[in-house]
Amino acid sequence: MQTLQEVMDLIAPRQVGDFWFTGCSPLPQRRIFGGQVVAQCLMAAQSTVDETMTAHSMHAYFLRAGNAELPIEFEVDPIRDGRSFCTRRVVARQGREAIFNTSVSFQIEESGYAHTVEMPPAATPDKSNDLDQRNLAFATQPGQPTLMELYGIERIRLTPMLLEKQVPESMTWMRGLGELSSNPKLHQAALAMMSDYALLGAALMAHEIEEPEKNIIAASLDHSIWFHNQPTVDDFVLYDCESPWTGGARGFARGRFWSQSGVLLASTAQECLIRPKSRD
Amino acid sequence: MQTLQEVMDLIAPRQVGDFWFTGCSPLPQRRIFGGQVVAQCLMAAQSTVDETMTAHSMHAYFLRAGNAELPIEFEVDPIRDGRSFCTRRVVARQGREAIFNTSVSFQIEESGYAHTVEMPPAATPDKSNDLDQRNLAFATQPGQPTLMELYGIERIRLTPMLLEKQVPESMTWMRGLGELSSNPKLHQAALAMMSDYALLGAALMAHEIEEPEKNIIAASLDHSIWFHNQPTVDDFVLYDCESPWTGGARGFARGRFWSQSGVLLASTAQECLIRPKSRD
Repeated sequence: MQTLQEVMDLIAPRQVGDFWFTGCSPLPQRRIFGGQVVAQCLMAAQSTVDETMTAHSMHAYFLRAGNAELPIEFEVDPIRDGRSFCTRRVVARQGREAIFNTSVSFQIEESGYAHTVEMPPAATPDKSNDLDQRNLAFATQPGQPTLMELYGIERIRLTPMLLEKQVPESMTWMRGLGELSSNPKLHQAALAMMSDYALLGAALMAHEIEEPEKNIIAASLDHSIWFHNQPTVDDFVLYDCESPWTGGARGFARGRFWSQSGVLLASTAQECLIRPKSRD
Repeated sequence: MQTLQEVMDLIAPRQVGDFWFTGCSPLPQRRIFGGQVVAQCLMAAQSTVDETMTAHSMHAYFLRAGNAELPIEFEVDPIRDGRSFCTRRVVARQGREAIFNTSVSFQIEESGYAHTVEMPPAATPDKSNDLDQRNLAFATQPGQPTLMELYGIERIRLTPMLLEKQVPESMTWMRGLGELSSNPKLHQAALAMMSDYALLGAALMAHEIEEPEKNIIAASLDHSIWFHNQPTVDDFVLYDCESPWTGGARGFARGRFWSQSGVLLASTAQECLIRPKSRD
Protein backbone atom coordinates (compact mmCIF):
# COMPACT_ATOMS: atom_id res chain seq x y z
CA MET A 1 0.00 0.00 0.00
CA GLN A 2 1.52 3.29 -1.08
CA THR A 3 1.32 6.42 1.04
CA LEU A 4 -0.08 9.57 -0.53
CA GLN A 5 3.37 11.17 -0.19
CA GLU A 6 4.88 8.34 -2.26
CA VAL A 7 2.18 8.80 -4.90
CA MET A 8 2.65 12.58 -5.05
CA ASP A 9 6.44 12.13 -5.32
CA LEU A 10 5.91 9.65 -8.15
CA ILE A 11 3.46 11.71 -10.18
CA ALA A 12 5.08 15.15 -9.57
CA PRO A 13 6.00 16.47 -13.03
CA ARG A 14 9.73 17.06 -13.57
CA GLN A 15 10.62 20.38 -15.16
CA VAL A 16 12.48 19.94 -18.46
CA GLY A 17 12.20 23.53 -19.72
CA ASP A 18 10.81 26.87 -18.51
CA PHE A 19 7.28 25.80 -19.40
CA TRP A 20 7.73 22.09 -20.15
CA PHE A 21 7.31 19.19 -17.77
CA THR A 22 7.17 15.43 -17.98
CA GLY A 23 5.36 13.06 -15.65
CA CYS A 24 4.38 9.45 -15.12
CA SER A 25 1.62 7.36 -13.54
CA PRO A 26 1.46 4.74 -10.78
CA LEU A 27 1.13 1.19 -12.09
CA PRO A 28 -0.57 -1.24 -12.58
CA GLN A 29 -3.43 0.51 -14.35
CA ARG A 30 -4.43 0.64 -17.98
CA ARG A 31 -6.13 4.01 -18.29
CA ILE A 32 -4.81 6.94 -16.27
CA PHE A 33 -7.11 8.11 -13.45
CA GLY A 34 -8.27 11.61 -14.43
CA GLY A 35 -7.66 13.08 -10.98
CA GLN A 36 -3.97 12.29 -11.39
CA VAL A 37 -3.69 14.50 -14.49
CA VAL A 38 -5.68 17.26 -12.77
CA ALA A 39 -3.11 17.20 -9.93
CA GLN A 40 -0.14 17.00 -12.29
CA CYS A 41 -1.28 20.00 -14.36
CA LEU A 42 -1.84 21.99 -11.18
CA MET A 43 1.65 21.08 -9.93
CA ALA A 44 3.22 22.06 -13.27
CA ALA A 45 1.35 25.39 -13.24
CA GLN A 46 2.32 26.03 -9.59
CA SER A 47 6.01 25.70 -10.58
CA THR A 48 5.70 28.57 -13.07
CA VAL A 49 4.25 31.25 -10.78
CA ASP A 50 5.75 33.33 -7.99
CA GLU A 51 5.82 31.82 -4.49
CA THR A 52 3.39 34.51 -3.32
CA MET A 53 0.68 33.23 -5.67
CA THR A 54 -1.84 30.50 -4.72
CA ALA A 55 -4.23 28.70 -7.06
CA HIS A 56 -7.84 29.74 -6.41
CA SER A 57 -9.53 27.91 -9.29
CA MET A 58 -9.03 25.59 -12.23
CA HIS A 59 -11.17 24.41 -15.14
CA ALA A 60 -10.32 21.37 -17.26
CA TYR A 61 -11.45 19.07 -20.06
CA PHE A 62 -10.61 15.39 -20.34
CA LEU A 63 -9.95 14.98 -24.07
CA ARG A 64 -8.75 11.39 -24.51
CA ALA A 65 -8.09 8.39 -22.29
CA GLY A 66 -4.47 8.43 -21.10
CA ASN A 67 -2.21 5.37 -21.24
CA ALA A 68 -0.65 4.81 -17.80
CA GLU A 69 2.40 3.08 -19.27
CA LEU A 70 3.48 6.09 -21.33
CA PRO A 71 4.98 9.36 -20.04
CA ILE A 72 2.87 12.52 -20.16
CA GLU A 73 4.21 15.86 -21.38
CA PHE A 74 2.86 19.06 -19.83
CA GLU A 75 3.08 22.31 -21.76
CA VAL A 76 2.34 25.45 -19.73
CA ASP A 77 1.24 28.67 -21.45
CA PRO A 78 1.77 31.72 -19.18
CA ILE A 79 -1.20 33.49 -20.78
CA ARG A 80 -1.39 36.19 -18.13
CA ASP A 81 1.01 37.58 -15.53
CA GLY A 82 -0.65 40.29 -13.46
CA ARG A 83 0.23 41.91 -10.16
CA SER A 84 -2.66 40.27 -8.28
CA PHE A 85 -3.63 37.41 -10.59
CA CYS A 86 -1.74 35.02 -12.89
CA THR A 87 -3.35 32.57 -15.30
CA ARG A 88 -1.76 29.46 -16.75
CA ARG A 89 -3.09 27.17 -19.48
CA VAL A 90 -1.73 23.64 -19.38
CA VAL A 91 -2.05 20.95 -22.06
CA ALA A 92 -1.15 17.34 -21.20
CA ARG A 93 -0.03 15.30 -24.19
CA GLN A 94 0.91 11.70 -24.91
CA GLY A 95 2.67 11.39 -28.25
CA ARG A 96 1.07 13.99 -30.50
CA GLU A 97 -2.32 13.84 -28.88
CA ALA A 98 -3.65 16.21 -26.23
CA ILE A 99 -5.29 14.08 -23.51
CA PHE A 100 -6.25 16.95 -21.17
CA ASN A 101 -6.36 20.74 -21.12
CA THR A 102 -6.85 23.08 -18.21
CA SER A 103 -6.60 26.70 -17.11
CA VAL A 104 -5.52 27.58 -13.59
CA SER A 105 -5.83 30.98 -11.93
CA PHE A 106 -3.50 32.14 -9.13
CA GLN A 107 -3.84 35.10 -6.79
CA ILE A 108 -1.72 36.90 -4.21
CA GLU A 109 -3.09 36.82 -0.67
CA GLU A 110 -5.89 39.36 -0.32
CA SER A 111 -8.57 40.03 2.26
CA GLY A 112 -12.07 41.43 2.11
CA TYR A 113 -15.66 40.47 2.77
CA ALA A 114 -16.38 36.93 3.98
CA HIS A 115 -19.37 34.63 4.28
CA THR A 116 -19.86 30.88 3.98
CA VAL A 117 -22.52 28.20 3.85
CA GLU A 118 -22.55 25.83 6.82
CA MET A 119 -21.26 22.26 6.71
CA PRO A 120 -24.09 19.70 6.50
CA PRO A 121 -24.44 17.24 9.40
CA ALA A 122 -22.25 14.19 8.80
CA ALA A 123 -21.34 11.08 10.78
CA THR A 124 -17.74 11.03 12.02
CA PRO A 125 -14.98 9.49 9.88
CA ASP A 126 -14.89 6.22 11.78
CA LYS A 127 -14.53 2.81 10.18
CA SER A 128 -17.78 1.87 11.90
CA ASN A 129 -19.66 4.39 9.73
CA ASP A 130 -18.14 3.10 6.49
CA LEU A 131 -20.74 1.94 3.94
CA ASP A 132 -18.12 1.38 1.28
CA GLN A 133 -18.88 -1.01 -1.51
CA ARG A 134 -17.20 -1.87 -4.72
CA ASN A 135 -16.95 1.33 -6.75
CA LEU A 136 -19.25 0.82 -9.72
CA ALA A 137 -17.60 3.30 -12.00
CA PHE A 138 -13.95 2.35 -11.61
CA ALA A 139 -14.02 -1.40 -11.21
CA THR A 140 -10.67 -3.12 -10.99
CA GLN A 141 -9.67 -6.67 -11.87
CA PRO A 142 -9.71 -9.19 -9.00
CA GLY A 143 -6.26 -9.21 -7.38
CA GLN A 144 -5.47 -5.69 -8.63
CA PRO A 145 -5.33 -2.75 -6.21
CA THR A 146 -8.38 -0.51 -6.15
CA LEU A 147 -8.04 2.98 -7.60
CA MET A 148 -8.07 4.41 -4.06
CA GLU A 149 -5.23 2.07 -2.98
CA LEU A 150 -3.21 2.88 -6.09
CA TYR A 151 -3.35 6.58 -5.25
CA GLY A 152 -2.73 6.32 -1.50
CA ILE A 153 -6.21 7.44 -0.45
CA GLU A 154 -8.44 6.08 2.28
CA ARG A 155 -12.21 6.43 1.94
CA ILE A 156 -15.16 6.17 4.32
CA ARG A 157 -18.45 6.26 2.48
CA LEU A 158 -21.35 7.66 4.56
CA THR A 159 -23.90 7.04 1.79
CA PRO A 160 -24.33 3.61 0.21
CA MET A 161 -23.90 3.13 -3.53
CA LEU A 162 -26.89 0.96 -4.38
CA LEU A 163 -27.85 -0.64 -7.64
CA GLU A 164 -31.35 0.83 -7.23
CA LYS A 165 -32.21 4.42 -8.05
CA GLN A 166 -31.64 6.71 -5.05
CA VAL A 167 -31.44 10.41 -4.20
CA PRO A 168 -28.23 11.55 -5.97
CA GLU A 169 -26.45 12.93 -2.91
CA SER A 170 -23.30 11.34 -1.55
CA MET A 171 -21.04 12.01 1.40
CA THR A 172 -17.56 10.57 1.67
CA TRP A 173 -14.68 11.13 4.05
CA MET A 174 -11.27 10.91 2.37
CA ARG A 175 -7.72 11.23 3.58
CA GLY A 176 -4.27 10.52 2.32
CA LEU A 177 -2.55 7.40 3.66
CA GLY A 178 0.42 8.28 5.85
CA GLU A 179 1.78 11.73 6.52
CA LEU A 180 2.08 14.34 3.77
CA SER A 181 4.78 17.03 3.77
CA SER A 182 3.35 20.32 5.01
CA ASN A 183 3.83 22.19 1.68
CA PRO A 184 0.41 23.81 1.08
CA LYS A 185 0.74 23.45 -2.72
CA LEU A 186 1.07 19.69 -2.34
CA HIS A 187 -2.10 19.49 -0.22
CA GLN A 188 -3.94 21.54 -2.83
CA ALA A 189 -2.77 19.24 -5.62
CA ALA A 190 -3.80 16.17 -3.62
CA LEU A 191 -7.25 17.67 -2.99
CA ALA A 192 -7.55 18.33 -6.73
CA MET A 193 -6.77 14.63 -7.32
CA MET A 194 -9.32 13.50 -4.73
CA SER A 195 -11.98 15.76 -6.25
CA ASP A 196 -12.31 13.51 -9.33
CA TYR A 197 -13.49 10.49 -7.27
CA ALA A 198 -17.09 10.96 -6.20
CA LEU A 199 -18.83 13.23 -8.73
CA LEU A 200 -19.55 10.59 -11.38
CA GLY A 201 -20.79 8.30 -8.63
CA ALA A 202 -23.29 10.94 -7.49
CA ALA A 203 -24.73 11.22 -11.02
CA LEU A 204 -25.03 7.41 -11.28
CA MET A 205 -27.01 7.26 -8.02
CA ALA A 206 -30.03 8.85 -9.74
CA HIS A 207 -30.45 5.79 -11.97
CA GLU A 208 -31.07 2.10 -11.78
CA ILE A 209 -28.42 0.62 -14.03
CA GLU A 210 -28.15 -3.15 -14.23
CA GLU A 211 -24.56 -4.39 -14.36
CA PRO A 212 -23.17 -0.89 -15.01
CA GLU A 213 -19.72 -2.19 -15.94
CA LYS A 214 -21.26 -4.11 -18.83
CA ASN A 215 -24.01 -1.71 -19.82
CA ILE A 216 -22.64 1.83 -19.68
CA ILE A 217 -19.52 3.72 -20.67
CA ALA A 218 -18.72 6.21 -17.92
CA ALA A 219 -15.96 8.84 -17.86
CA SER A 220 -15.27 12.37 -16.62
CA LEU A 221 -15.74 15.01 -19.34
CA ASP A 222 -14.77 18.23 -17.59
CA HIS A 223 -13.73 19.30 -14.12
CA SER A 224 -13.81 22.56 -12.17
CA ILE A 225 -12.41 23.37 -8.74
CA TRP A 226 -12.64 26.57 -6.73
CA PHE A 227 -10.27 26.55 -3.75
CA HIS A 228 -11.73 28.50 -0.83
CA ASN A 229 -9.49 27.64 2.13
CA GLN A 230 -6.19 25.76 2.45
CA PRO A 231 -6.81 21.99 2.88
CA THR A 232 -4.90 19.49 5.00
CA VAL A 233 -5.48 16.17 3.27
CA ASP A 234 -3.63 13.81 5.59
CA ASP A 235 -6.51 14.60 7.93
CA PHE A 236 -9.98 13.49 6.87
CA VAL A 237 -11.88 15.86 4.54
CA LEU A 238 -15.59 15.44 3.79
CA TYR A 239 -16.63 15.36 0.12
CA ASP A 240 -20.29 16.25 -0.19
CA CYS A 241 -21.66 15.72 -3.75
CA GLU A 242 -25.03 15.98 -5.49
CA SER A 243 -26.24 15.59 -9.06
CA PRO A 244 -28.97 17.95 -10.29
CA TRP A 245 -29.32 16.60 -13.83
CA THR A 246 -28.62 13.75 -16.25
CA GLY A 247 -29.50 13.75 -19.96
CA GLY A 248 -28.02 13.46 -23.48
CA ALA A 249 -25.73 10.65 -22.23
CA ARG A 250 -24.22 13.13 -19.75
CA GLY A 251 -24.55 13.58 -16.00
CA PHE A 252 -23.82 16.80 -14.09
CA ALA A 253 -22.65 16.86 -10.47
CA ARG A 254 -21.41 19.44 -7.96
CA GLY A 255 -19.38 18.95 -4.81
CA ARG A 256 -17.96 20.59 -1.71
CA PHE A 257 -14.97 19.67 0.44
CA TRP A 258 -15.10 20.40 4.17
CA SER A 259 -12.55 20.11 6.94
CA GLN A 260 -13.57 18.15 10.03
CA SER A 261 -14.01 21.45 11.85
CA GLY A 262 -16.53 22.65 9.24
CA VAL A 263 -14.41 24.96 7.08
CA LEU A 264 -15.43 25.04 3.39
CA LEU A 265 -12.23 24.01 1.58
CA ALA A 266 -13.31 23.88 -2.06
CA SER A 267 -16.25 23.66 -4.45
CA THR A 268 -16.21 21.40 -7.50
CA ALA A 269 -18.33 20.67 -10.57
CA GLN A 270 -18.12 18.00 -13.23
CA GLU A 271 -19.99 16.64 -16.19
CA CYS A 272 -19.57 12.94 -16.93
CA LEU A 273 -20.29 10.71 -19.88
CA ILE A 274 -22.94 8.12 -18.96
CA ARG A 275 -23.51 6.38 -22.28
CA PRO A 276 -25.65 3.24 -22.53
CA LYS A 277 -23.69 0.64 -24.52
CA SER A 278 -25.41 -0.32 -27.72
CA ARG A 279 -26.91 -3.82 -27.61
CA ASP A 280 -26.10 -4.57 -31.26
CA MET B 1 -33.46 50.52 -27.69
CA GLN B 2 -31.77 47.72 -29.60
CA THR B 3 -33.35 44.32 -30.07
CA LEU B 4 -31.39 41.25 -29.03
CA GLN B 5 -31.25 40.20 -32.70
CA GLU B 6 -29.57 43.53 -33.57
CA VAL B 7 -27.07 43.03 -30.76
CA MET B 8 -26.29 39.44 -31.78
CA ASP B 9 -25.86 40.55 -35.42
CA LEU B 10 -23.51 43.32 -34.28
CA ILE B 11 -21.33 41.20 -32.00
CA ALA B 12 -21.27 38.02 -34.17
CA PRO B 13 -17.59 37.40 -34.97
CA ARG B 14 -16.74 37.53 -38.68
CA GLN B 15 -14.58 34.67 -39.94
CA VAL B 16 -11.30 35.90 -41.42
CA GLY B 17 -9.48 32.54 -41.58
CA ASP B 18 -10.22 28.87 -40.82
CA PHE B 19 -9.72 29.47 -37.11
CA TRP B 20 -9.55 33.28 -36.91
CA PHE B 21 -12.41 35.68 -36.27
CA THR B 22 -12.82 39.36 -35.55
CA GLY B 23 -15.61 41.03 -33.60
CA CYS B 24 -16.77 44.32 -32.14
CA SER B 25 -18.85 45.66 -29.23
CA PRO B 26 -21.99 47.76 -28.92
CA LEU B 27 -21.28 51.38 -27.93
CA PRO B 28 -21.31 53.54 -25.86
CA GLN B 29 -19.46 51.63 -23.15
CA ARG B 30 -15.92 51.89 -21.88
CA ARG B 31 -15.19 48.35 -20.70
CA ILE B 32 -16.61 45.43 -22.61
CA PHE B 33 -19.35 43.49 -20.78
CA GLY B 34 -17.87 40.04 -20.08
CA GLY B 35 -20.99 38.18 -21.20
CA GLN B 36 -20.50 39.61 -24.67
CA VAL B 37 -17.07 37.98 -25.02
CA VAL B 38 -18.43 34.70 -23.62
CA ALA B 39 -21.09 34.75 -26.38
CA GLN B 40 -18.61 35.77 -29.08
CA CYS B 41 -16.15 32.99 -28.24
CA LEU B 42 -19.00 30.47 -28.24
CA MET B 43 -20.17 31.73 -31.65
CA ALA B 44 -16.62 31.55 -33.06
CA ALA B 45 -16.23 27.98 -31.73
CA GLN B 46 -19.66 26.98 -33.10
CA SER B 47 -18.51 28.04 -36.60
CA THR B 48 -15.61 25.57 -36.52
CA VAL B 49 -17.50 22.38 -35.68
CA ASP B 50 -19.83 20.17 -37.71
CA GLU B 51 -23.52 21.14 -37.86
CA THR B 52 -24.39 17.93 -35.97
CA MET B 53 -22.44 19.09 -32.89
CA THR B 54 -23.97 21.20 -30.10
CA ALA B 55 -22.11 22.92 -27.27
CA HIS B 56 -22.79 21.22 -23.93
CA SER B 57 -20.36 23.17 -21.73
CA MET B 58 -17.81 25.96 -21.64
CA HIS B 59 -15.26 27.20 -19.09
CA ALA B 60 -13.63 30.61 -19.29
CA TYR B 61 -11.31 33.09 -17.59
CA PHE B 62 -11.58 36.86 -17.84
CA LEU B 63 -7.94 37.94 -18.11
CA ARG B 64 -8.02 41.68 -18.71
CA ALA B 65 -10.66 44.39 -19.09
CA GLY B 66 -11.58 44.77 -22.76
CA ASN B 67 -11.81 48.13 -24.51
CA ALA B 68 -15.20 48.41 -26.26
CA GLU B 69 -13.85 50.83 -28.88
CA LEU B 70 -11.28 48.37 -30.21
CA PRO B 71 -11.92 45.24 -32.29
CA ILE B 72 -11.41 41.83 -30.67
CA GLU B 73 -9.59 38.98 -32.39
CA PHE B 74 -10.67 35.41 -31.69
CA GLU B 75 -8.23 32.56 -32.23
CA VAL B 76 -9.76 29.07 -32.16
CA ASP B 77 -7.61 26.01 -31.41
CA PRO B 78 -9.31 22.78 -32.60
CA ILE B 79 -7.63 20.81 -29.80
CA ARG B 80 -9.81 17.74 -30.26
CA ASP B 81 -12.01 16.40 -33.05
CA GLY B 82 -13.70 13.19 -32.01
CA ARG B 83 -16.64 11.25 -33.40
CA SER B 84 -18.94 12.08 -30.47
CA PHE B 85 -17.17 15.06 -28.88
CA CYS B 86 -15.18 18.04 -30.18
CA THR B 87 -13.31 20.54 -28.01
CA ARG B 88 -12.29 24.05 -28.98
CA ARG B 89 -10.05 26.47 -27.10
CA VAL B 90 -10.64 30.12 -27.90
CA VAL B 91 -8.47 33.10 -26.95
CA ALA B 92 -9.85 36.63 -27.37
CA ARG B 93 -7.16 39.27 -27.90
CA GLN B 94 -6.97 43.02 -28.22
CA GLY B 95 -3.63 44.12 -29.63
CA ARG B 96 -1.08 41.67 -28.25
CA GLU B 97 -2.92 41.00 -25.03
CA ALA B 98 -5.23 38.09 -24.31
CA ILE B 99 -8.34 39.48 -22.61
CA PHE B 100 -10.25 36.18 -22.29
CA ASN B 101 -9.69 32.46 -22.77
CA THR B 102 -12.19 29.65 -22.88
CA SER B 103 -12.67 26.00 -23.76
CA VAL B 104 -15.94 24.79 -25.27
CA SER B 105 -17.03 21.17 -25.62
CA PHE B 106 -19.45 20.00 -28.32
CA GLN B 107 -21.30 16.70 -28.63
CA ILE B 108 -23.44 14.92 -31.22
CA GLU B 109 -27.02 14.23 -30.16
CA GLU B 110 -27.10 11.24 -27.81
CA SER B 111 -29.71 9.76 -25.52
CA GLY B 112 -29.54 7.84 -22.26
CA TYR B 113 -30.56 8.11 -18.64
CA ALA B 114 -32.39 11.24 -17.50
CA HIS B 115 -33.24 12.97 -14.23
CA THR B 116 -33.58 16.58 -13.16
CA VAL B 117 -34.05 18.77 -10.12
CA GLU B 118 -37.34 20.64 -10.00
CA MET B 119 -37.75 24.33 -10.71
CA PRO B 120 -38.14 26.40 -7.53
CA PRO B 121 -41.41 28.31 -7.05
CA ALA B 122 -41.18 31.74 -8.69
CA ALA B 123 -43.58 34.61 -9.29
CA THR B 124 -44.59 35.06 -12.94
CA PRO B 125 -42.55 37.33 -15.24
CA ASP B 126 -44.96 40.26 -15.01
CA LYS B 127 -43.89 43.86 -14.69
CA SER B 128 -45.96 44.02 -11.50
CA ASN B 129 -43.52 41.57 -9.85
CA ASP B 130 -40.45 43.56 -10.88
CA LEU B 131 -38.30 44.65 -7.92
CA ASP B 132 -35.59 46.03 -10.17
CA GLN B 133 -33.31 48.66 -8.78
CA ARG B 134 -30.19 50.28 -10.02
CA ASN B 135 -27.64 47.49 -10.58
CA LEU B 136 -24.93 48.06 -7.99
CA ALA B 137 -22.20 46.24 -9.83
CA PHE B 138 -22.56 47.68 -13.30
CA ALA B 139 -23.54 51.27 -12.68
CA THR B 140 -23.88 53.44 -15.75
CA GLN B 141 -23.53 57.19 -16.11
CA PRO B 142 -26.75 59.23 -15.96
CA GLY B 143 -28.13 59.56 -19.48
CA GLN B 144 -26.25 56.46 -20.68
CA PRO B 145 -28.12 53.25 -21.50
CA THR B 146 -27.99 50.56 -18.83
CA LEU B 147 -26.00 47.42 -19.58
CA MET B 148 -29.25 45.52 -20.08
CA GLU B 149 -30.52 48.08 -22.62
CA LEU B 150 -27.19 48.11 -24.45
CA TYR B 151 -27.44 44.34 -24.94
CA GLY B 152 -31.14 44.14 -25.84
CA ILE B 153 -32.19 42.31 -22.68
CA GLU B 154 -35.23 42.86 -20.50
CA ARG B 155 -35.08 41.96 -16.82
CA ILE B 156 -37.65 41.38 -14.10
CA ARG B 157 -36.03 41.03 -10.70
CA LEU B 158 -38.01 38.88 -8.24
CA THR B 159 -35.54 39.49 -5.40
CA PRO B 160 -34.57 43.00 -4.32
CA MET B 161 -30.95 44.09 -4.33
CA LEU B 162 -30.66 45.86 -0.99
CA LEU B 163 -27.77 47.75 0.49
CA GLU B 164 -28.14 45.69 3.66
CA LYS B 165 -26.79 42.17 4.04
CA GLN B 166 -29.34 39.58 2.85
CA VAL B 167 -29.56 35.88 2.03
CA PRO B 168 -27.44 35.57 -1.14
CA GLU B 169 -30.11 34.04 -3.37
CA SER B 170 -31.51 35.89 -6.35
CA MET B 171 -34.18 35.17 -8.94
CA THR B 172 -34.46 37.10 -12.16
CA TRP B 173 -36.54 36.66 -15.29
CA MET B 174 -34.70 37.69 -18.46
CA ARG B 175 -35.62 37.77 -22.10
CA GLY B 176 -34.31 39.23 -25.30
CA LEU B 177 -36.04 42.35 -26.61
CA GLY B 178 -37.85 41.64 -29.86
CA GLU B 179 -37.86 38.39 -31.78
CA LEU B 180 -34.73 36.31 -32.23
CA SER B 181 -34.11 34.14 -35.31
CA SER B 182 -34.89 30.50 -34.50
CA ASN B 183 -31.29 29.27 -34.96
CA PRO B 184 -30.64 27.22 -31.78
CA LYS B 185 -26.93 28.20 -31.74
CA LEU B 186 -27.90 31.86 -31.52
CA HIS B 187 -30.21 31.21 -28.56
CA GLN B 188 -27.42 29.29 -26.84
CA ALA B 189 -24.96 32.17 -27.40
CA ALA B 190 -27.51 34.68 -26.09
CA LEU B 191 -28.10 32.57 -22.99
CA ALA B 192 -24.31 32.45 -22.47
CA MET B 193 -24.29 36.25 -22.63
CA MET B 194 -27.19 36.56 -20.16
CA SER B 195 -25.48 34.16 -17.76
CA ASP B 196 -22.83 36.76 -16.83
CA TYR B 197 -25.43 39.18 -15.40
CA ALA B 198 -26.62 37.97 -12.01
CA LEU B 199 -23.87 35.87 -10.41
CA LEU B 200 -21.73 38.72 -9.09
CA GLY B 201 -24.90 40.35 -7.77
CA ALA B 202 -25.74 37.19 -5.79
CA ALA B 203 -22.30 37.23 -4.10
CA LEU B 204 -22.69 40.92 -3.23
CA MET B 205 -26.04 40.25 -1.53
CA ALA B 206 -24.28 38.48 1.35
CA HIS B 207 -22.60 41.72 2.44
CA GLU B 208 -23.44 45.19 3.57
CA ILE B 209 -21.29 47.40 1.38
CA GLU B 210 -21.69 51.14 1.71
CA GLU B 211 -21.55 52.94 -1.62
CA PRO B 212 -20.24 49.87 -3.45
CA GLU B 213 -19.34 51.85 -6.57
CA LYS B 214 -16.88 53.90 -4.51
CA ASN B 215 -15.70 51.26 -2.09
CA ILE B 216 -15.18 48.02 -4.00
CA ILE B 217 -13.71 46.85 -7.28
CA ALA B 218 -15.96 44.12 -8.67
CA ALA B 219 -15.42 42.00 -11.79
CA SER B 220 -16.02 38.49 -13.10
CA LEU B 221 -12.95 36.25 -12.81
CA ASP B 222 -14.08 33.00 -14.41
CA HIS B 223 -17.27 31.60 -15.90
CA SER B 224 -18.66 28.12 -16.47
CA ILE B 225 -21.82 27.04 -18.26
CA TRP B 226 -23.29 23.58 -18.69
CA PHE B 227 -26.08 23.53 -21.29
CA HIS B 228 -28.73 20.95 -20.39
CA ASN B 229 -31.65 21.72 -22.72
CA GLN B 230 -32.07 24.03 -25.71
CA PRO B 231 -33.15 27.52 -24.56
CA THR B 232 -35.52 29.97 -26.26
CA VAL B 233 -34.40 33.36 -25.04
CA ASP B 234 -36.95 35.63 -26.70
CA ASP B 235 -39.30 34.03 -24.19
CA PHE B 236 -38.64 34.70 -20.50
CA VAL B 237 -36.08 32.43 -18.79
CA LEU B 238 -35.64 32.35 -15.01
CA TYR B 239 -32.10 32.81 -13.66
CA ASP B 240 -31.88 31.39 -10.17
CA CYS B 241 -28.54 32.22 -8.43
CA GLU B 242 -26.97 31.68 -5.01
CA SER B 243 -23.60 32.40 -3.45
CA PRO B 244 -22.18 29.85 -1.01
CA TRP B 245 -18.93 31.66 -0.16
CA THR B 246 -16.97 34.91 -0.21
CA GLY B 247 -13.36 35.33 0.98
CA GLY B 248 -9.87 36.37 -0.13
CA ALA B 249 -11.42 39.30 -2.07
CA ARG B 250 -13.36 36.76 -4.16
CA GLY B 251 -17.00 35.70 -4.22
CA PHE B 252 -18.31 32.39 -5.57
CA ALA B 253 -21.79 31.98 -7.06
CA ARG B 254 -23.76 29.28 -8.89
CA GLY B 255 -26.84 29.62 -11.07
CA ARG B 256 -29.52 27.78 -12.99
CA PHE B 257 -31.62 28.83 -15.98
CA TRP B 258 -35.17 27.53 -16.28
CA SER B 259 -37.81 27.81 -18.99
CA GLN B 260 -41.23 29.09 -17.95
CA SER B 261 -42.50 25.52 -18.18
CA GLY B 262 -39.90 24.33 -15.64
CA VAL B 263 -37.25 22.75 -17.90
CA LEU B 264 -33.67 23.08 -16.58
CA LEU B 265 -31.86 24.87 -19.42
CA ALA B 266 -28.38 25.39 -18.03
CA SER B 267 -26.22 25.47 -14.90
CA THR B 268 -23.59 28.14 -14.34
CA ALA B 269 -20.81 28.98 -11.88
CA GLN B 270 -18.62 32.02 -11.45
CA GLU B 271 -16.03 33.48 -9.14
CA CYS B 272 -15.88 37.28 -8.95
CA LEU B 273 -13.39 39.77 -7.64
CA ILE B 274 -14.88 41.73 -4.71
CA ARG B 275 -11.92 43.84 -3.59
CA PRO B 276 -12.31 46.57 -1.01
CA LYS B 277 -10.67 49.73 -2.37
CA SER B 278 -7.79 50.88 -0.25
CA ARG B 279 -8.55 54.04 1.73
CA ASP B 280 -5.04 55.47 1.34
